[in-house]
Amino acid sequence: MSTIDYSFDKQFLRYQDCINEALPGAFTGDDEAADMTMEAALYSLMAGGKRIRPVLMLAVSDMLSLSADIVLPFAAAIEMIHTYSLIHDDLPCMDNDDTRRGMPTCHVKYPEAIALLAGDALLNRAYEIMLEACGDGDLRKIRAANFMARMAGARGMIGGQTLDLLSEGKRIPADVLMVLHSKKTGCLLMAPVIIPAYLCSQGKEHAIIEEYLMEFARHIGLGFQIKDDILDVTSTKDVLGKSTGKDAAEEKSTFVTLFGLQKAREMLQNETDSARNALFELRNSGYDTRFLEDLNDYLLLRNK
Amino acid sequence: MSTIDYSFDKQFLRYQDCINEALPGAFTGDDEAADMTMEAALYSLMAGGKRIRPVLMLAVSDMLSLSADIVLPFAAAIEMIHTYSLIHDDLPCMDNDDTRRGMPTCHVKYPEAIALLAGDALLNRAYEIMLEACGDGDLRKIRAANFMARMAGARGMIGGQTLDLLSEGKRIPADVLMVLHSKKTGCLLMAPVIIPAYLCSQGKEHAIIEEYLMEFARHIGLGFQIKDDILDVTSTKDVLGKSTGKDAAEEKSTFVTLFGLQKAREMLQNETDSARNALFELRNSGYDTRFLEDLNDYLLLRNK
Repeated sequence: MSTIDYSFDKQFLRYQDCINEALPGAFTGDDEAADMTMEAALYSLMAGGKRIRPVLMLAVSDMLSLSADIVLPFAAAIEMIHTYSLIHDDLPCMDNDDTRRGMPTCHVKYPEAIALLAGDALLNRAYEIMLEACGDGDLRKIRAANFMARMAGARGMIGGQTLDLLSEGKRIPADVLMVLHSKKTGCLLMAPVIIPAYLCSQGKEHAIIEEYLMEFARHIGLGFQIKDDILDVTSTKDVLGKSTGKDAAEEKSTFVTLFGLQKAREMLQNETDSARNALFELRNSGYDTRFLEDLNDYLLLRNK
Repeated sequence: MSTIDYSFDKQFLRYQDCINEALPGAFTGDDEAADMTMEAALYSLMAGGKRIRPVLMLAVSDMLSLSADIVLPFAAAIEMIHTYSLIHDDLPCMDNDDTRRGMPTCHVKYPEAIALLAGDALLNRAYEIMLEACGDGDLRKIRAANFMARMAGARGMIGGQTLDLLSEGKRIPADVLMVLHSKKTGCLLMAPVIIPAYLCSQGKEHAIIEEYLMEFARHIGLGFQIKDDILDVTSTKDVLGKSTGKDAAEEKSTFVTLFGLQKAREMLQNETDSARNALFELRNSGYDTRFLEDLNDYLLLRNK
């Protein structure tokens, strides 16, 4: 990242462009003839997501002076894993959502069975490109891919989705809500922050960096979810590109339904402050944290 | 495999026991507290499958004098991938099957959304245990995991499931039926035969062995599917543990509906003979192929 011409918006766009250019080829590989499942997967993969997770990964990589070539397969993989989870979450047996990012969800655009397979194909391909990247036997990459698997799996994101499903229509205690979101949203925000650190050389100094990064990731993860819950009651479907007011209608436990809007906003501010504090520690260690600081503010202030 | 006391039945049971003992721990990892998704995944994983794929993998490993320790994570992974595909195939939006191996399917026993997540969790965990096995940076293991990903993905099994879905209610040409099954069933029978070869040391002699193994896998793969199609019209739900007569009722193109029962039986015999010929070549190269020969006959003669 150039130290002279830094602009958050431009840098965000550059990261988004980088991932948007890499994604289609990363998904289709060397295959010329896409079938309907691959087409459906590409439809959802390229349906205008904000790319928060790969942008985070590219930004942390930049901060750690890690080459984009090394991290790019992992950045593509996390967006594929994120997209598969959205496709499956939107299915009739889950949230039954017909709109996502202002567009018809995968199972509305394509037959439901194809949407199911498209999710499966994205998850599978995410591992395939990580394994291809691991083909040189680099232990750092293997450790990174392993971490991704733990974050995405039954003890990570899927565990959070399960808790979420089983909490439907119930008022759950605040500590369960915390665990739910630390898994459901948190794990896939932890992975892009930690994976670049794993991809760098190891060492004693690095363990401290990983601690700060983990702290940063934990707080933006929780803040991200609190913001989502706030937007569900304060935003509109037009702005958000997906249904709003669903949480209250379904008597879902959220940070807003459990704590009220005012308290939720305070909690969000606290998480953002704590995330910033973790970044200050990294800045004191000599790292250029400007983009991550601005991204932290952006996540706090975003309106969709 | 002892050369003295060889008995196919006993050896088959030993392989099945080996995988049945390893599977639950391989899936749950170091987690004590299973949630409903993990419970549902375990339900399907341990619902009395024949374990053909891991048995094949263990048998080929034995033939190549490869230690069971090395191959076991891959054997567990392929059974998890197979099980995830069955859970998703059984869902209402796919085949809508309520019985599998004589037991309620996952989404009948558990909420549909949990069954969906159980499939996702199994696929994810399959990659996690392979990546854990790759933690020593052994290039042969990474290559094997990569091959698994290709066989399971959009260009492999999922590609076959897609072709199958899009062929529903249509009469498709014989060559499309071949491609469909070489992907849908064939890929997950190719993987367990080839992966042990990848896990062995490489060399010029080994390339020839891989060729014969690939030929063997191709023929048992096709034979396996022809046999499945035959059983759908000649067996009963009680024996088979799943619905029969569905293919004809849904006007599905199968080897029986396209070629008739008599011709399908001849084709099955041809595939079995070709698989045996490939094994003869391996025997001539000094390998003990008795178990694989008997397994080939077993797959031809099985009644479920």
